[in-house]
Amino acid sequence: MELNKLFTNKDELINKEVELNGWIRNHRPQKEFGFIDFADGTTFKHLQLIYDKDLANFNEAVALKNGSAINVVGILTKSNGKNQDIELQVKKITLLGDCDETYPLQPKKHTREFLRSIAYLRPRANLFQAIFRIRSLASMAIHLYFQERGYVYFHAPIITGSDCEGAGEMFQVTTLPIEKLNKEVDYKKDFFGKKSGLTVSGQLQAETFAMAFSKVYTFGPTFRAENSNTKVHASEFWMIEPEIAFCDLNQLMDIEEEFLKYIVSYVLKNGNEELQFLEKFTAPGLLQKLNDLVASNFTRKTHEEVITILKEAKVDFEFAPNYGEDIAKEHEKYLTDYFHGPVFITDWPKDIKAFYMKQNPDGQTVAAVDLIVPGSGELMGGSQREEDYNKLKSRMEELKMDISELEWYLNLRKYGTCVHSGFGMGFERLLIYLTGVDNIRDVIAYPRTPNNCEF
Amino acid sequence: MELNKLFTNKDELINKEVELNGWIRNHRPQKEFGFIDFADGTTFKHLQLIYDKDLANFNEAVALKNGSAINVVGILTKSNGKNQDIELQVKKITLLGDCDETYPLQPKKHTREFLRSIAYLRPRANLFQAIFRIRSLASMAIHLYFQERGYVYFHAPIITGSDCEGAGEMFQVTTLPIEKLNKEVDYKKDFFGKKSGLTVSGQLQAETFAMAFSKVYTFGPTFRAENSNTKVHASEFWMIEPEIAFCDLNQLMDIEEEFLKYIVSYVLKNGNEELQFLEKFTAPGLLQKLNDLVASNFTRKTHEEVITILKEAKVDFEFAPNYGEDIAKEHEKYLTDYFHGPVFITDWPKDIKAFYMKQNPDGQTVAAVDLIVPGSGELMGGSQREEDYNKLKSRMEELKMDISELEWYLNLRKYGTCVHSGFGMGFERLLIYLTGVDNIRDVIAYPRTPNNCEF
Repeated sequence: MELNKLFTNKDELINKEVELNGWIRNHRPQKEFGFIDFADGTTFKHLQLIYDKDLANFNEAVALKNGSAINVVGILTKSNGKNQDIELQVKKITLLGDCDETYPLQPKKHTREFLRSIAYLRPRANLFQAIFRIRSLASMAIHLYFQERGYVYFHAPIITGSDCEGAGEMFQVTTLPIEKLNKEVDYKKDFFGKKSGLTVSGQLQAETFAMAFSKVYTFGPTFRAENSNTKVHASEFWMIEPEIAFCDLNQLMDIEEEFLKYIVSYVLKNGNEELQFLEKFTAPGLLQKLNDLVASNFTRKTHEEVITILKEAKVDFEFAPNYGEDIAKEHEKYLTDYFHGPVFITDWPKDIKAFYMKQNPDGQTVAAVDLIVPGSGELMGGSQREEDYNKLKSRMEELKMDISELEWYLNLRKYGTCVHSGFGMGFERLLIYLTGVDNIRDVIAYPRTPNNCEF
Repeated sequence: MELNKLFTNKDELINKEVELNGWIRNHRPQKEFGFIDFADGTTFKHLQLIYDKDLANFNEAVALKNGSAINVVGILTKSNGKNQDIELQVKKITLLGDCDETYPLQPKKHTREFLRSIAYLRPRANLFQAIFRIRSLASMAIHLYFQERGYVYFHAPIITGSDCEGAGEMFQVTTLPIEKLNKEVDYKKDFFGKKSGLTVSGQLQAETFAMAFSKVYTFGPTFRAENSNTKVHASEFWMIEPEIAFCDLNQLMDIEEEFLKYIVSYVLKNGNEELQFLEKFTAPGLLQKLNDLVASNFTRKTHEEVITILKEAKVDFEFAPNYGEDIAKEHEKYLTDYFHGPVFITDWPKDIKAFYMKQNPDGQTVAAVDLIVPGSGELMGGSQREEDYNKLKSRMEELKMDISELEWYLNLRKYGTCVHSGFGMGFERLLIYLTGVDNIRDVIAYPRTPNNCEF
């Protein structure tokens, strides 16, 4: 029986015999009896096993090591322990897989850095049990949200010849031999007959599907070959990119707000044990933060309005806020404090935003929107897309982009174009927000960062 | 209003006014009136719009072109048409986005090859509406199956330094400049400080998570740099790889059978319109095939047993069946015919299977299982994994593998090892099976194959 089923049906199972397979997380053998902290990973909860001298193989049991896999048969009983309401009185215990003495994951405090170095073992630790269960739950929440609302899941290509943002730093994908120096390369001889790389965004391709299905979303890996060694940058990360036809910027914000609240509510409901653990040991205030988000109304302000607020703020910012410029982390924090909750910042200066964004009548701004949330800053970035063929083409020419490469994208504006919008959310940014863990390397099973591609 | 909501609530909406946004799939203007075949992609169904001379902008309406985006207001009425039970009496029609006369997707028969060349427009065609809706539904079915049963969704790394199968043809990922010739390359200077490539399978990493969560699954892109130009090979495709602790080969087959029936049932239920269309225009017999699968009991035979059956068959095979050898397409077909349904073939000769598979006591075979299904051949491949440290290490040495690269994988057998099993299913192979479409390029939005990386 799996532990999640045991806990779900514990009332019916009391005083009954059950058989379990799992691992010893912590063993405290005594002279006459012993306690085993037992888990199988099907639930965040552990079960306490108790055995005593009556056990046929008591001497073997006492010698069982942390990390070992065991099969155990016993009677489920009510417990008076302060940490549990049930426990298992062991009748039979069998070692399935021993654990070598070199086992690096002992039940003591390890640093996150050390745990990263044993990333193949760390999911057995409570912290990572919590994080990766929440990762799985949040994934499901995302699929449920979209599928319940009739969105079509679109698998954007990973290998691509196009560069969405026009200036992303891409990994090259090749089967050609590599050398130290750059000479002329004949890409006709490469696998795809052209230079190709790993996608930085599936948005442009998602737009082609939105013009056929109205509502689509991507949920897949994206890549940046950026040499950034910060806590929030990874070279490989998952993105969610919905794209919606007949949807303007205001409707997009409605969707973003509903979507985020849906995910947070889902995790609050289905990941309660995990969040309680994180609240207690890692991120005090986490539950309050998440509950506040669900209850809040997201503020909507233009970029110009928030710059005015920042300029009037009696705060000595490291970076002075300026009209026409980007907003720093410290500004985001001030704004979410100021509005006591998430803030949509709309209508950004066009020169600091991407080419495909809808040009506003003022000629200076675009219909873009960034969502900033308390504690994490920017969580989603979206925009209404430029649906006018001539305006989009002019903007691409202005930016000296290679139009021939994106003719198909431009053509969407020639063949039944319509108002449409979409946003992108970095999945790991969301997980940092949901778990309160501050380093992106701890919410990815096997993180890839500059000079790091282990496992 | 979206069309899916309109069709769902049509009884309440009859004789009421509704407003819709979508596209003209086919326009048949007459002198005094006109018919528009209208769709918005939120359902496979189309709605017929009828307008007449009373329309204020009748002359404009008559000129509307196929492919245009429109907004329409009208009264939903019962229809006597043979293809529909409702239609819309148009009161107002507004052009949102015109469609240029060069629009290549006209309502006529196009070849699949031509449609691939306009892959950014083909999702607007009925065939691809059906295929990509089923792709989305099947994705959801996969997530639902696993999440309802407590599996944790594991995102396997895409960029990797390990080569799972030991002999896969991998794409290299790099930020180094590329040259025509191969000299000595200092990979310390590459982005990850080592040679890295695109994953061919997430299994090995998934095993590390199965040792922590008992039941996990991957669902993500994988890659093969194989120069194969067949109908069933793509360079980039999605895979599903569940990995289950405390699960032997027989239990694995139980899961595979339940899993496949779950997906097929889900698509039969939620994709009925799409399947009906495919049945009618593309794949006669599709519905029967899918319903038969759900009702069938999958046969379980060893590799040796099926070779004996093949040898006794009174059929002139192109390739003679042999003990100790692989099974050809023609043999798979014979076997699924012979057993009138899906067949699990177990206990394969170890020399034609991967290093990590559980070695059987006979010393000749491994606890591997391939599932073959009527009409498609191999659909899933799985095995019990070798959980014995020494046996696994010996096998890797025998195969002259670089053990230092996979020390973490071997160590799983040192730290609480247990019987565990898993399988892999190519998502596009499943889609070929589900849709009856025979070319993998038609079930992937933007397929990547040798010399093809468009869009």
